Amino acid sequence: MRTALLAAATALALSFPLAAQEEPKGAPAPAEIVAAAPKADWVAIPAEDLLVMTLAPDAEGNPRTVVIQLMPAPFSQGWVHNIRLFARSGWYDGISVNRVQDNYVTQWGDPNYDNPEATGKPKPLPEGLKVMTEAEYVVDYLASIESGIDIPFDEEDPFFETTCVSGGYFGQDGKFVELEKSCSEVEKWPPASSFGWGFPIAHNARRAWPVHCYGMVGVGRNYSPDTGSGAELYTVIGHAPRHLDRNIALVGRVIEGMEHLSSLPRGKGALGFYTAEEAGKRTPITSVRVANDLPVNEQPRFEYLSTESATFATYAEAIANRRDPFFITPAGGADICNIRVPVRRVP
Amino acid sequence: MRTALLAAATALALSFPLAAQEEPKGAPAPAEIVAAAPKADWVAIPAEDLLVMTLAPDAEGNPRTVVIQLMPAPFSQGWVHNIRLFARSGWYDGISVNRVQDNYVTQWGDPNYDNPEATGKPKPLPEGLKVMTEAEYVVDYLASIESGIDIPFDEEDPFFETTCVSGGYFGQDGKFVELEKSCSEVEKWPPASSFGWGFPIAHNARRAWPVHCYGMVGVGRNYSPDTGSGAELYTVIGHAPRHLDRNIALVGRVIEGMEHLSSLPRGKGALGFYTAEEAGKRTPITSVRVANDLPVNEQPRFEYLSTESATFATYAEAIANRRDPFFITPAGGADICNIRVPVRRVP
Repeated sequence: MRTALLAAATALALSFPLAAQEEPKGAPAPAEIVAAAPKADWVAIPAEDLLVMTLAPDAEGNPRTVVIQLMPAPFSQGWVHNIRLFARSGWYDGISVNRVQDNYVTQWGDPNYDNPEATGKPKPLPEGLKVMTEAEYVVDYLASIESGIDIPFDEEDPFFETTCVSGGYFGQDGKFVELEKSCSEVEKWPPASSFGWGFPIAHNARRAWPVHCYGMVGVGRNYSPDTGSGAELYTVIGHAPRHLDRNIALVGRVIEGMEHLSSLPRGKGALGFYTAEEAGKRTPITSVRVANDLPVNEQPRFEYLSTESATFATYAEAIANRRDPFFITPAGGADICNIRVPVRRVP
Repeated sequence: MRTALLAAATALALSFPLAAQEEPKGAPAPAEIVAAAPKADWVAIPAEDLLVMTLAPDAEGNPRTVVIQLMPAPFSQGWVHNIRLFARSGWYDGISVNRVQDNYVTQWGDPNYDNPEATGKPKPLPEGLKVMTEAEYVVDYLASIESGIDIPFDEEDPFFETTCVSGGYFGQDGKFVELEKSCSEVEKWPPASSFGWGFPIAHNARRAWPVHCYGMVGVGRNYSPDTGSGAELYTVIGHAPRHLDRNIALVGRVIEGMEHLSSLPRGKGALGFYTAEEAGKRTPITSVRVANDLPVNEQPRFEYLSTESATFATYAEAIANRRDPFFITPAGGADICNIRVPVRRVP
């Protein structure tokens, strides 16, 4: 995440280190705002919410570790429970990365599960897994209010509406052509975006749900009504696939080591799955541990910038309106997935 | 791109090939709509608009080729002219990939340019390069109309407005807190999105400009007023960095071989640049050729789905409202960068 913050700060101005050109003065870049945040703005992530995933060393023998932060209540807690159970039973040990699809996902799990080309038997699942319903992809506001979470109910904001696809395009002859309108009964797009509990959240008048931003971790499933157990996980390695929001469970995000998942070779099979000929490309996952179970001196410690803080509000606004020296025209706004909640390791 | 289309079609339902579970019937997926398009909907890309970039073979000795489609008029033509000039003069031969920043860009150029750690001298630039102004990052509508492009001028759509960042976030205690409003004079966000000449285009009442979607190719530059020559190019390998729109020139997109750029090892230096110790990671670029200059039987041929076609309108709507079997809740809309214009190789 640190690399991403530096990126947000200095952008492409520095095509190469500017030995010759002095950096102009200007408004602070987003990363500078974060760097200046007081200690009190940072929130420690509980060790119970951290997964330490160790991959096999790379071709040069370098170790590869990925750290995942699990979402806190009230989101996806059934799946989060299962994931801790999988990790604690050692079920994840020895699974592999089986799918890498460019501009979409890296996915990992048991390579022998439901796979006609499997070379072994599927691993029996551990006892005590919960089964979730599709209703749990989202958090119901009314139920949340009863549990003490106060989310504004907007009576003027209808949940459903007849929405028509419109707009237009420029034809080959340069003429602007209106798109044939197509209407259907769906929810308003885009939903409102917010940050909650340190994560990107979308919501409408009645429900809230996590957003499939880059690095978010979700639960693979089969067709409805299957909702997935947590045996199969994936992370987003491209432009946020928002069409998956509310259709599949999101359980957390990668907070360190993302490059070990995003730079893997893409699979040549359908959907980026590795074919039988590519079995050698399946990156082995040696172990997945809940940080809380590691010896205390081995537990990684991380903190995130509180989305309640004034620093975060300033940071988000600076991303929406870049005024630091490289920029000429501020955008006037930003997509929720471009406002990445800062997370850092605590030494 | 074909892999991306299959992805759009079948999503994560197929955690593994569903040997056991029969695929339910339902509405066609976006890729199925594209596959059914009549031949007449496909537009050939001129050989003059195609760059064939050959990278050094990978560690297993496999060849790696990237094909880039250059943008047509009226966008970025000064830089596009320069890029053809660089390619035709052989200037790109022997440069390298020098920067890979996770969730941002892969960038390539002369590793000896403005680099204190350079081991050689910078390559002299070829003669005949054009110098562009910042005004050319966008296309002016009024000038476009004079040149025959008819883009609607919306008198009710002010170019600038006072915009305030608002919204809210959920605090640790679950309470929804309104973000401190921050106002500035900027353009309305988000700008309207359309497709023009086969590319994703944003526009307001007076100007149009290309959008930094995944795979789009842009021109590295130093601080304003430098606008870059085309010696330094990059492609987006993460969530679309829309804050770069109108601040830097976009010149095209990768239409084949994207995986050869997106799966490269990330640089450990600032902004993802390779450090001196990582010199061995700089992927060499053997050559860049304009397809039109290759022997006719070696010229790759590509076509894109016309954004004027009824097929494309149906495809875009299906992406905005997924009703194919995997999905439960259609999103009701889509970000322009999730509506990828289909491009395919012609055998």
